Amino acid sequence: EDRELLLAAAYVSDAQYNRNVPFETSAQAIRLYHFYNHWTMRAATYFFIWVDLALALFEEPAVFPLPFLVTSIAEVLCLTAFFGRLVHFAKVTPQKVFWKDTKNICIMVTIVLTLIDLVIYASLEAVNIRGVRWSRALRPVFLINFPESRQVRRAFRSIRNTLPDILYVFLLFLFSMMIFSLMALKLFGDRDLRTVEGSPYFTNILDIAFELYVLVTTANSPDVMMPAYELNWWYSLYFIAYIIINTYIFMSVFLAVVYNNYRKHLKNEIHTLAYLKRHKMTEAFNILKVKVGTEFVVKEARWRRLVKVVAPGISSSHLELLLRISDEGQTGHVDKMNFLRLADLLNIRVVAINIKKHPLETWMPRVYQSSTSLLVQKMVQHRQPLCGKGELGNTRPSSCSLALSSFSPWQESLGGRIFVWVYDVIILINAIFIALDEKDSLISYAEWLFLSLYIIEILLKLYTYEPSAYFGRKQFWNWFDTLIIIAALLATVANTTIQARKYNSQQVLDIVLILRILRLLRVIVSIQRFRVIVTTLINIGPTMLTFGGLVLVVYYAFAIIGMEAFHGKVHFLDPSSGSPDAAVCGNPALKDSAFARGRYCKNNFNDLASSLVLLTELTVVNQWHDILSEEEACFALLADGFALATHQAAKLYFIGFHVVVVILIVNIFIAFILEAFFVAY
Amino acid sequence: EDRELLLAAAYVSDAQYNRNVPFETSAQAIRLYHFYNHWTMRAATYFFIWVDLALALFEEPAVFPLPFLVTSIAEVLCLTAFFGRLVHFAKVTPQKVFWKDTKNICIMVTIVLTLIDLVIYASLEAVNIRGVRWSRALRPVFLINFPESRQVRRAFRSIRNTLPDILYVFLLFLFSMMIFSLMALKLFGDRDLRTVEGSPYFTNILDIAFELYVLVTTANSPDVMMPAYELNWWYSLYFIAYIIINTYIFMSVFLAVVYNNYRKHLKNEIHTLAYLKRHKMTEAFNILKVKVGTEFVVKEARWRRLVKVVAPGISSSHLELLLRISDEGQTGHVDKMNFLRLADLLNIRVVAINIKKHPLETWMPRVYQSSTSLLVQKMVQHRQPLCGKGELGNTRPSSCSLALSSFSPWQESLGGRIFVWVYDVIILINAIFIALDEKDSLISYAEWLFLSLYIIEILLKLYTYEPSAYFGRKQFWNWFDTLIIIAALLATVANTTIQARKYNSQQVLDIVLILRILRLLRVIVSIQRFRVIVTTLINIGPTMLTFGGLVLVVYYAFAIIGMEAFHGKVHFLDPSSGSPDAAVCGNPALKDSAFARGRYCKNNFNDLASSLVLLTELTVVNQWHDILSEEEACFALLADGFALATHQAAKLYFIGFHVVVVILIVNIFIAFILEAFFVAY
Ligand code: NA
Repeated sequence: EDRELLLAAAYVSDAQYNRNVPFETSAQAIRLYHFYNHWTMRAATYFFIWVDLALALFEEPAVFPLPFLVTSIAEVLCLTAFFGRLVHFAKVTPQKVFWKDTKNICIMVTIVLTLIDLVIYASLEAVNIRGVRWSRALRPVFLINFPESRQVRRAFRSIRNTLPDILYVFLLFLFSMMIFSLMALKLFGDRDLRTVEGSPYFTNILDIAFELYVLVTTANSPDVMMPAYELNWWYSLYFIAYIIINTYIFMSVFLAVVYNNYRKHLKNEIHTLAYLKRHKMTEAFNILKVKVGTEFVVKEARWRRLVKVVAPGISSSHLELLLRISDEGQTGHVDKMNFLRLADLLNIRVVAINIKKHPLETWMPRVYQSSTSLLVQKMVQHRQPLCGKGELGNTRPSSCSLALSSFSPWQESLGGRIFVWVYDVIILINAIFIALDEKDSLISYAEWLFLSLYIIEILLKLYTYEPSAYFGRKQFWNWFDTLIIIAALLATVANTTIQARKYNSQQVLDIVLILRILRLLRVIVSIQRFRVIVTTLINIGPTMLTFGGLVLVVYYAFAIIGMEAFHGKVHFLDPSSGSPDAAVCGNPALKDSAFARGRYCKNNFNDLASSLVLLTELTVVNQWHDILSEEEACFALLADGFALATHQAAKLYFIGFHVVVVILIVNIFIAFILEAFFVAY
Repeated sequence: EDRELLLAAAYVSDAQYNRNVPFETSAQAIRLYHFYNHWTMRAATYFFIWVDLALALFEEPAVFPLPFLVTSIAEVLCLTAFFGRLVHFAKVTPQKVFWKDTKNICIMVTIVLTLIDLVIYASLEAVNIRGVRWSRALRPVFLINFPESRQVRRAFRSIRNTLPDILYVFLLFLFSMMIFSLMALKLFGDRDLRTVEGSPYFTNILDIAFELYVLVTTANSPDVMMPAYELNWWYSLYFIAYIIINTYIFMSVFLAVVYNNYRKHLKNEIHTLAYLKRHKMTEAFNILKVKVGTEFVVKEARWRRLVKVVAPGISSSHLELLLRISDEGQTGHVDKMNFLRLADLLNIRVVAINIKKHPLETWMPRVYQSSTSLLVQKMVQHRQPLCGKGELGNTRPSSCSLALSSFSPWQESLGGRIFVWVYDVIILINAIFIALDEKDSLISYAEWLFLSLYIIEILLKLYTYEPSAYFGRKQFWNWFDTLIIIAALLATVANTTIQARKYNSQQVLDIVLILRILRLLRVIVSIQRFRVIVTTLINIGPTMLTFGGLVLVVYYAFAIIGMEAFHGKVHFLDPSSGSPDAAVCGNPALKDSAFARGRYCKNNFNDLASSLVLLTELTVVNQWHDILSEEEACFALLADGFALATHQAAKLYFIGFHVVVVILIVNIFIAFILEAFFVAY
């Protein structure tokens, strides 16, 4: 009986969270499976994944250096945790399934490879030879392959499905580039033209192809055109044709193909998920069903126990509500149709609107209900729930006491509108004060005034609205308001204290400044159209996180490869130190280069943070040929004899990054925002 | 009777071409209306519109200078033509409707304004004062407002409908920029940082806002970040946050809003058009109907006369086909339902597949049907129509003799596949030969060989396929093949003749080279997936032309304004002339500027061609702040006392262009390609 309940609960829970893990149905395996899905275990796994990824911050080349012994012990610890998690999973899932799943094989292989790499690196270190920690580029494997990262994997699957279609467009794009390169070679190759730097212009077909690829990203426009354009303005037509075809048409076609596949894939996924959910819920029902009359049902008592196992933290009123929905006729049992809905019902967030009286109303009803107090409340209430607390704070129809809704209808009141309007004006004045110079002591006093006004606003709102409703789960803007004000208050107090001790902390001051300006965002709330746009953006936040995971995997791998290949080639030295190396980024090869001239020395692969910033710059595709050509020049200089080969290899690294990030990931990001807005509008 | 027929024909024709012009129904007005819609009149109108637009090439500042007298006479001529067209329209349409239509008012006002401008300019010229030909920026008005440009107007309407939604997103975007500008001012303003050029970094809020706007276009990345990034790498987070929010999220939201509106608008337009078409066809039916039995119908004889009036050039077999479709029961009359379909039927292109024997088969059947000849045909036929000409060239089921289809099914044959494959290899070898240096005489002889091979291919195909079918209207690739080969042949012969006379024409040589390379495109035809993508792109060609009209209107207006404001500020002087002014683009203010260093002197507003090239560069949004800052510097220098004001005005010109072109037009272009590909896939 107990085993059956646990098994059914496991199915319901899987349906609720869209998990699709086959597990053994022995009593022990089910218990292990519940433990496997417990939030503490999942949190621990994520913790170790992040520690593992963060190790790159502390390993050579480090942002915050730690000895190799410390980082390697941490890494082994992480690997042990991953292995433990895997063993746990092996105990839960059938042997056959476990060994057929590439995810598990991937994790095991990566653990073994990392250990091998660690041993090799340590031995080389022992005899003072610097090895390459190549296995670090594999770390994102853990982020992708644990069953927890279903969403990220789905995004990857979506990319994989897009690849064949993208490939054909890409080949056609390369073909078009080849045709244009040939034309450029024939048109300009024999003209003895020179670029601004004085190097030969368009004489080698591979260089031309690379320059034209860069032109697709617009990074070398208009420079690449100028020598030919100076010769004759007709030649600009060649470049305009190239830009229209390859930059605009092909890039749009890439987006079209990615977006089309994204939508198709999304539809399929939703169908599959719905099918699996139904299947699991049916399994759970079949375990718990008993025959009553002619139909199979689940008895109320059993249903209650099931829900308590699936959602241990559920409140009794919430449980009763779910039961009332599932057993409308109050027959004492739940039929199949209603039972299958349980997984979805559990996912719906239940908000309790104003079931409680305002605490002040309980403590001192006379004062709270006095005419002055009611007037204040009326002024503050800019939007009021249509049900729940009414104008006088005491009309609460019972049908509203508990509502299945993440959104409640409001109505505007005149007093409230004035209140909002007054505070919008205050924010505007505050913005002007911020823009003015704050060395004036009047202005720095004004800052205290504004802070007090904002605190009064929040206190007034807390006076009017029931606090637990005001800080409801979906009340994003209330949370935002309060947190930003409290943070600003704390930071300002901290800053004043520090300044009083004649000690000036730039970090604290920066934070105070940022918080002070972020407060201005509150003006968005009062403009309906703005709120709609921002709310749409906030609602796609969770899916954005998935997308962030995807980006992280790609950037991390590229950053590690970039660090191994290019680190130490370029150094940033403080120009005020007067060192002659500062002007050439610590590398004589960069003398008189556009790279050093543009003060790009900080754009290097010397640690994880710098690498990630550099990769972000490459994503924006501007000046990336400059960044690239210098990395490449140093690289070629050092690699000496192999100059040409390494030259081309460095180009491949950057082009590979561009293709993956700009053609695939940025387009998926756009597709994703397009879809979110189509749903919202 | 005759009047009725003409009136009905006018309705049918309007329905066929989706025209929506109310016209008078008097006999004379109808005749005038038919004349108004005659293709010669429409062609003449377009001719004058293009002449009017092209005048900017010949007017000061000119690409090909002509005296003011000549251009002004040409302009007056165009205006007279426009006025005549308008008078013609006024005779056709009811008085009330004519005066209520803003299009007509627009044209009249523009004609009057242009005349005023011409008179003022001429009088000023007479007393040697240089005036501003401001009315030239209004010329695109004619392109938009004549009833012929329905498509372009529809595109403009689509933009206008998008504006309110775009506006709110744009305001939110400006708000976000303002917040970030304030942060930048507070974080970096007091740090005494310097840019690479040594100017103060982020000290003035307007300058910051402008720099950040430029960062949205990515044009000043990563330069704008470097001074702050050098100070502390934490500050890079500010810029990364800015880029994610404003460059990626907001730009995607702009696309989403534009695309969403585009789709909505498209749906509405299609509904309206369908309604209007039905309405007009019903009117036509009501005019021609007679009662036969219980229902109203149109008699066959009358129907025939109607079709001959609507489509004078229709072939009798085509007419019979339409009749057979419209009167399936061969009852001698067309009922209402079938009559309403006529407008659509007339729009369907009818292809006659192989009704004619191959001419050679008629002239010398014995030779053409000999086994050698059949073998050759079998080898060449790489794709064969499933009906029509079969393997042996003589199976022609009558059901295929005329087919209502713009596409016919094909089947592959082995011999044909080998033929295609052989020619693909030849193209590949040709590509390699082109890439090699052609100074080698062997290679230049090879060129003749390839040319002959291609000519043989076309002759073989013409031998195998019936010529009028081979050059069918939809046989894009056959046309492409033949034209490019003939052009290459002519150009090569011309080039050889010229070279034999020891005279070397660069233009001819350039054309030969381009044609030679374009031949390589034929390889696309043999790869199915490529053909699909390219065919989709070619099919959206006509709509692309509409889009081209839209772009032209915007670019033309901006080019004229740019020419009036900035022309003559920058000059390109041949550096080999040794003139000291060459290095500073003929303007001392540009000494040591990035503009002159980058050899950007050709990027100027000195004539229409240069202006359009410059605007294209601005569309690509790279280095545009460099281009801008120099235009602006010269401008400020010359405007002297008004430096700051003109400074900001120049910025507004460029930002205005960016907002209109990149946020609206480029996004519409992308939306448009997205939609075309969704329909195609
Ligand atoms: Na760019």
